[in-house]
Amino acid sequence: MNTLYRIALDAMGGDHGLEVVVPAALMALELYSDISLTLVGDEEQIKRLLDKHKTSNPERLQIQQASQVVGMDEAPAAALKNKKDSSMRVAINLVKAGEVEAAVSAGNTGALMATGRFVLKMLPGIDRPAICSTMPGVKGHSHMLDLGANVDSSADHLHQFALMGSELSKAIDEKDNPSVALLNIGAEAIKGNEQVKAADRLLKASALNYIGYIEGNDIYSGDIDVIVCDGFVGNVALKTSEGLAEMISGKLKSSFSRSWLSRLTGLIALPTLRSFRQEMDPRRYNGASLLGLQGIAIKSHGGADSLAFANAISIARTEVIKKVPQRIDKQIAALLPQRKTE
Amino acid sequence: MNTLYRIALDAMGGDHGLEVVVPAALMALELYSDISLTLVGDEEQIKRLLDKHKTSNPERLQIQQASQVVGMDEAPAAALKNKKDSSMRVAINLVKAGEVEAAVSAGNTGALMATGRFVLKMLPGIDRPAICSTMPGVKGHSHMLDLGANVDSSADHLHQFALMGSELSKAIDEKDNPSVALLNIGAEAIKGNEQVKAADRLLKASALNYIGYIEGNDIYSGDIDVIVCDGFVGNVALKTSEGLAEMISGKLKSSFSRSWLSRLTGLIALPTLRSFRQEMDPRRYNGASLLGLQGIAIKSHGGADSLAFANAISIARTEVIKKVPQRIDKQIAALLPQRKTE
Repeated sequence: MNTLYRIALDAMGGDHGLEVVVPAALMALELYSDISLTLVGDEEQIKRLLDKHKTSNPERLQIQQASQVVGMDEAPAAALKNKKDSSMRVAINLVKAGEVEAAVSAGNTGALMATGRFVLKMLPGIDRPAICSTMPGVKGHSHMLDLGANVDSSADHLHQFALMGSELSKAIDEKDNPSVALLNIGAEAIKGNEQVKAADRLLKASALNYIGYIEGNDIYSGDIDVIVCDGFVGNVALKTSEGLAEMISGKLKSSFSRSWLSRLTGLIALPTLRSFRQEMDPRRYNGASLLGLQGIAIKSHGGADSLAFANAISIARTEVIKKVPQRIDKQIAALLPQRKTE
Repeated sequence: MNTLYRIALDAMGGDHGLEVVVPAALMALELYSDISLTLVGDEEQIKRLLDKHKTSNPERLQIQQASQVVGMDEAPAAALKNKKDSSMRVAINLVKAGEVEAAVSAGNTGALMATGRFVLKMLPGIDRPAICSTMPGVKGHSHMLDLGANVDSSADHLHQFALMGSELSKAIDEKDNPSVALLNIGAEAIKGNEQVKAADRLLKASALNYIGYIEGNDIYSGDIDVIVCDGFVGNVALKTSEGLAEMISGKLKSSFSRSWLSRLTGLIALPTLRSFRQEMDPRRYNGASLLGLQGIAIKSHGGADSLAFANAISIARTEVIKKVPQRIDKQIAALLPQRKTE
């Protein structure tokens, strides 16, 4: 029998908990015959739900008991202190213990970051984890980071993000020399703030394939492999995109339901509109990597459904196969020789 | 005869200069019988183009000679020093001299801000101009500022933006008590940076109808009258939206041209798709206010076409009618009594 890639799932996290995670796990087991999943959470509840859903792959599914759940609005420090038997913490503990090779959680982002950092530790040379996600684009996709883990990032932090993103792109997209860009504001009075200008100097002097500044409208070009920005800026860009996409999709729907004629037209156009929506489906991009940790932790959107959560599992699987943390570690050692250990 | 609202147009600015501004001016004169426009730029070229287009309103159209043009990439300080007879500078001078009540330019944003600030001066109590634009939303529209004039805005600056945006909304939307929100990142580890947290405290203590933090996905809800953010963040949000809207529109188009069947469907759906596109048309929102100046200066998108530029003229007209700078001045005097004069 081949080796299985082992992934732990925080079964209780996110807005919908088990209702989403259990079906997602079964879906992922169907999709990938080379993974083994551990559902972490309330054993009794998990079993009850598994009985309802039935799986054809019971041999690749484990349950690990955890008695607590981290609240979506709980302060990270409080979760770390008071929820030592939470489904999130136990899932991350399994990564640390080597029982699994990755953990996926739709829970509280801050708590997941704090737990990841506390339990798994940072890679030497990396100060803080960064949230990195795949962004769809006209010509291809990009990896963008940080999407909200760090505010007021220094130039050094932006430099570290660039190194990590570049290595991720090499590993996942199998690109030799991924292009890296800094998100900035362009044609305006004062081009960029001090951190961005200083990061620009660092990146110009680095061994990365740094192509310079881009502006917000270039994010969706799909031309750039890695887009680097401060977490405040990245988070606003990501969430603004979510809001706009939702508005456009709503207006499109209402355009096709305004009169009997447009409703009829909508019916005729349904297959085309459906394929359009499928292509734009944000669930296909669900799953953000917490880069910089000594281990793989994937954050699913809190409101993700099963299809979206299954996608986050598939990202975890890819990072396990590609040994992303090990590769980043090696790269940092080569390019940041002065790195310190936490 | 009724008084006319007098507006100067930087006829040479923007990516397309006269080719866009002259037709836009004629369009605006047709639309509004209460405006008078002054085209500022190369008199000979303007006359030649006017001969080609013909206007039925020559009595409300003037020409003001200006021999220079500010380049789109020219440094603001250089433009200020070396281009004293530029179309942009002369248009702003006309506002200062009281010959017109507003100026519209599609030229270099930085130069326009620097020129506005140098010639018109800031309102007492306001440190820096802010770029404010109308954002479409599901339920209505919002005024968002700053969109790129200021990076690293302090809490005091964000407070000033809030005061100005609120007064703009009162004047233009005729709202008694516009809601004001601060753009922040929400469910993440560290909620917001220091400036945003400090601005939150200032706004809570203010007389404004401050509703607290919103996240990027709330921008397009149309629920909030005024959205306040740092210029770096606002610019990224705006440009990211431009890029995403472009990608979605491109994908929609290609969905409807994939096969003969989808092309046929697209033809049938054309009127509906067209009305959808019209509703989403960014040209309808073209024209950003440079708030905080002692006078009205409207920035049109550099790449704007005539329809979009005409919209910027209509925004200038509204601000003249509503006496926006005077209202902001009064409001600042009432709410920031400790204000200083530049």
